[in-house]
Amino acid sequence: METIEKPYVIGLDLGGTNSVFGIVDARGEIKATTAIKTKGYPDPKDYVTASVAALEPIIDSVGGIEMIKGMGIGAPNGNYYTGQVEEAPNLDWKGSVPLAKLFEEQLGIPVALTNDANAAAMGEMTYGVARGMKNFIMITLGTGVGSGIVVNGQVVYGSDGFAGELGHAIIDRTPEARQCGCGRKGCLEAYCSATGIVRTAREMLIKDSRPSKLRSLNPDDITGLDVSVAAKEGDELAIDILRYTGRLLGKACANFALFCSPEAFIFFGGPTKSGEMLMKHVREAYDEDILYVYKGKAKILLSGLNGSDAAVLGASALGWEL
Amino acid sequence: METIEKPYVIGLDLGGTNSVFGIVDARGEIKATTAIKTKGYPDPKDYVTASVAALEPIIDSVGGIEMIKGMGIGAPNGNYYTGQVEEAPNLDWKGSVPLAKLFEEQLGIPVALTNDANAAAMGEMTYGVARGMKNFIMITLGTGVGSGIVVNGQVVYGSDGFAGELGHAIIDRTPEARQCGCGRKGCLEAYCSATGIVRTAREMLIKDSRPSKLRSLNPDDITGLDVSVAAKEGDELAIDILRYTGRLLGKACANFALFCSPEAFIFFGGPTKSGEMLMKHVREAYDEDILYVYKGKAKILLSGLNGSDAAVLGASALGWEL
Repeated sequence: METIEKPYVIGLDLGGTNSVFGIVDARGEIKATTAIKTKGYPDPKDYVTASVAALEPIIDSVGGIEMIKGMGIGAPNGNYYTGQVEEAPNLDWKGSVPLAKLFEEQLGIPVALTNDANAAAMGEMTYGVARGMKNFIMITLGTGVGSGIVVNGQVVYGSDGFAGELGHAIIDRTPEARQCGCGRKGCLEAYCSATGIVRTAREMLIKDSRPSKLRSLNPDDITGLDVSVAAKEGDELAIDILRYTGRLLGKACANFALFCSPEAFIFFGGPTKSGEMLMKHVREAYDEDILYVYKGKAKILLSGLNGSDAAVLGASALGWEL
Repeated sequence: METIEKPYVIGLDLGGTNSVFGIVDARGEIKATTAIKTKGYPDPKDYVTASVAALEPIIDSVGGIEMIKGMGIGAPNGNYYTGQVEEAPNLDWKGSVPLAKLFEEQLGIPVALTNDANAAAMGEMTYGVARGMKNFIMITLGTGVGSGIVVNGQVVYGSDGFAGELGHAIIDRTPEARQCGCGRKGCLEAYCSATGIVRTAREMLIKDSRPSKLRSLNPDDITGLDVSVAAKEGDELAIDILRYTGRLLGKACANFALFCSPEAFIFFGGPTKSGEMLMKHVREAYDEDILYVYKGKAKILLSGLNGSDAAVLGASALGWEL
């Protein structure tokens, strides 16, 4: 009789506000979920204890811990090599927190940890549009621009576990380049994150005199979603904001292709809800800028995972490698 | 009794003019060399036959083909995956030439092939300053700017075998950006190759009124070496040309670090003969531009291989992996 492979993994999407857990099968189906608040546990051990308490009933519901192969965590500043969350500015914990080890001790199963964008790349490779791909680049558009790079079927972690920060590629070296939150100027993130798109909107509303639905909003309250909705309603200014954003992304990706000649760039996150209104400009600018040897090779794709489940699925994907 | 490991590999540095062969031991000592002209063989089979005829006496001198583990070839447009030289503009051969297969058939040993910069990276990892490193970026400065990227101890070949063309990273997106030989504008190569340095020299000799030894030369005849020599003699304009070049390289490398957080950048080629007069500016600009998480992590190094042997050594290094 064959040994039955353990059929499930646990994924934890550790966000600044909420921690969402899911038990996932090999096809990427989420069998059970639970959640706790991330804040309110100054001692990380208490956070892990609360997590395990929340996990127990859903683990029981799938047949107990014997059915779980491993656990993956996607967390800000998560370091795959050390299993630690290191100096994460949006969490309560100072210094390095050995989260993987703490969960291993309390759950008795192997646990791996990485950052959100790397987890997203793992998720696409395991359950999404990157199944079967060995070389691709994941770009996550949110408050920032994150990236997860897969080479030869492995996420690139680099010498220190922190590789893959393409959101901080400097795309504008002129004196007018935008200030980025990292302290430098001209980073891709300052233009193409949801926040960057809003900055573009505010700038264009001043520089451009065309009428726009966005003018009815308080400039300080405009969101990336407002731009997306206005563009879909045919608002020309909003359409141009997406064109500007998409072209910058496409040109940046043409530079990224030089590293690893990927099969695909996969985009995820709020701004991708604009769909082709954004993506057609990514493709167009990429095709214009790409070095001749790579022409026509890489696909520009949207994530294959359901947005609200993607983070948990991505984290869970780490569990299969353990 | 233990089986004796085959103690040697063959390296072939296939250049536009000459093809240089070396038999190399595991410590990177070249035991014997030979060479033929690259041109004059419209049929690649004849080139391989002439190569094997030239190789025979040096193979005999180390004890015969039984002593050779494998052969590595570094060639322009060499594709590791296919073992082919593909559409190399400076060679006589059109289309794709299955050079690895042709040598395998005639020599009876396994043969691998890659491009020059990837071979250089293999050489540093096997015999040079990258021994023991798993993540680094090789930058070769010559007529062009080449690169070989090593991640998790493996050269990054990407989806098609052509990954690692960092010389074509676009570093200037202004309308004044320099035209590159690839047909695009603003590539690193247009500024920091030996040819790019000469362009900088010609531009600065016009824009800058300071006296300079370079003014005694016909602007069309200036070489990278002239700039290097003048700088070493204290020529201020030449010193500024190297500063300009080094700073651009450093800033470009700070962007490259985002991809794979390398342990080191390793520079090779003619312009590196300027030594610290170039490299101190690479380091300075890199340190200014690097994202905080990577600060102080990567070393900026010069190749550890003797310039004239480096290409053969690099190619030979592929032979050990077979």
